[in-house]
Amino acid sequence: MKRRLLLVSNSTLYGSGFLDHCQQQILGFFGKDVKRVLFVPYALHDRDAYTRKARDKLRPLGYEVDSIHEASDPVAAVRQAEAIFIGGGNTFRLLRTLYQQEVLTEIRRRVLEDGLPYMGSSAGTNVATVSISTTNDMPIVFPPSFAAIGLVPFNINPHYQDPDPSSRHMGETREERIRQYHEEPGTPRVLGLREGSMLLVEGDRATLLGTTGARLFTRGEPAAEFSPGSDLSFLLTDAA
Amino acid sequence: MKRRLLLVSNSTLYGSGFLDHCQQQILGFFGKDVKRVLFVPYALHDRDAYTRKARDKLRPLGYEVDSIHEASDPVAAVRQAEAIFIGGGNTFRLLRTLYQQEVLTEIRRRVLEDGLPYMGSSAGTNVATVSISTTNDMPIVFPPSFAAIGLVPFNINPHYQDPDPSSRHMGETREERIRQYHEEPGTPRVLGLREGSMLLVEGDRATLLGTTGARLFTRGEPAAEFSPGSDLSFLLTDAA
Repeated sequence: MKRRLLLVSNSTLYGSGFLDHCQQQILGFFGKDVKRVLFVPYALHDRDAYTRKARDKLRPLGYEVDSIHEASDPVAAVRQAEAIFIGGGNTFRLLRTLYQQEVLTEIRRRVLEDGLPYMGSSAGTNVATVSISTTNDMPIVFPPSFAAIGLVPFNINPHYQDPDPSSRHMGETREERIRQYHEEPGTPRVLGLREGSMLLVEGDRATLLGTTGARLFTRGEPAAEFSPGSDLSFLLTDAA
Repeated sequence: MKRRLLLVSNSTLYGSGFLDHCQQQILGFFGKDVKRVLFVPYALHDRDAYTRKARDKLRPLGYEVDSIHEASDPVAAVRQAEAIFIGGGNTFRLLRTLYQQEVLTEIRRRVLEDGLPYMGSSAGTNVATVSISTTNDMPIVFPPSFAAIGLVPFNINPHYQDPDPSSRHMGETREERIRQYHEEPGTPRVLGLREGSMLLVEGDRATLLGTTGARLFTRGEPAAEFSPGSDLSFLLTDAA
């Protein structure tokens, strides 16, 4: 399988600018061959402003940005892309728009069959997985399904947060929410990617990058911790 | 309109037991005439344990608890109920089950036409409103719609949290999430009910109870703060 993915937990890390914390990984991932990146700004309301932000960041790194919302034919834009970057925002809005624009199947095909490099951050990482059922976002719009692009056989929880022992808030912790997901039958693994973490997938090899590590949740099993640099290739086999 | 609702932000306040912080309001709401309360435990996986918890709390207050999941005919159970209490947990699971069991319409009819007293906490408060689009929960299952029971013409965000100025987490604040909801056309008001707050609705009169106040979000307008005891009856008129 040619699949190449860079799945980033969060586009902006505390105290730094947009995509600054993963800049080296972006350069390594897109490399010198990619000249133009197709940007998907569907997760935010103001697509023009979001595209400017992506353009201002990626152009100095050597990548021109074309936004899918400026294309007259979004499916053709995916078909012709050299690389794709789906940005964060609201995951429900993003997924609904991917369905409305009928680009979801074509993105899947191009990534899995052609090896189109796919970068996602936050909501853009959620939609790369099995489903958006482990997003943190509010369900502000109703998509036709929670099933996502399905580039990997597991789910991700971006912006993963450990419980705060000093909190007096009584809403469920992130781990409790993921446990509730796993009370449902047939639910896949969930990789909790802390802010500052990202997952690099190249074919059948997956590596945890960044500085903060990740926590893996498997239905019916205890959670497991992984430190930066861990080989997570076992996640790419279909067995949950 | 006969409608009587007690919509509680959270079932358990930090440092106290299940429903302790709203015990006086429950007694005032159900009063002396109600003898039996129909409990809806659909938001949690272990319905038996949840029903025991509700029974252990409400029986000493003078109310017997029948759980809808123990009824052979859930719609008939709603039809015969003297009062209903929908507990918290996962809002998506709760709403999906209300649709699956086909009780949603009957609950609406009995509350709006017969004046069946309706108490909700957390997820049980979310489903009383226009839609579940302002829940904080993970979308662990896919309901047929986000449209909820619609006992009031606005939405609620339970467990409302003010921004934490010391946070280094880069996920959206609660207010930012609700603002994203209001970027969508035709979205109703959202009442952010802090933990410790609850809304009492009697006919066309709504009053904010509890100790922590609420924050009201209206599409295209600045947010507004309301202190405990505020008259919020204007929320019950349909104008957004």
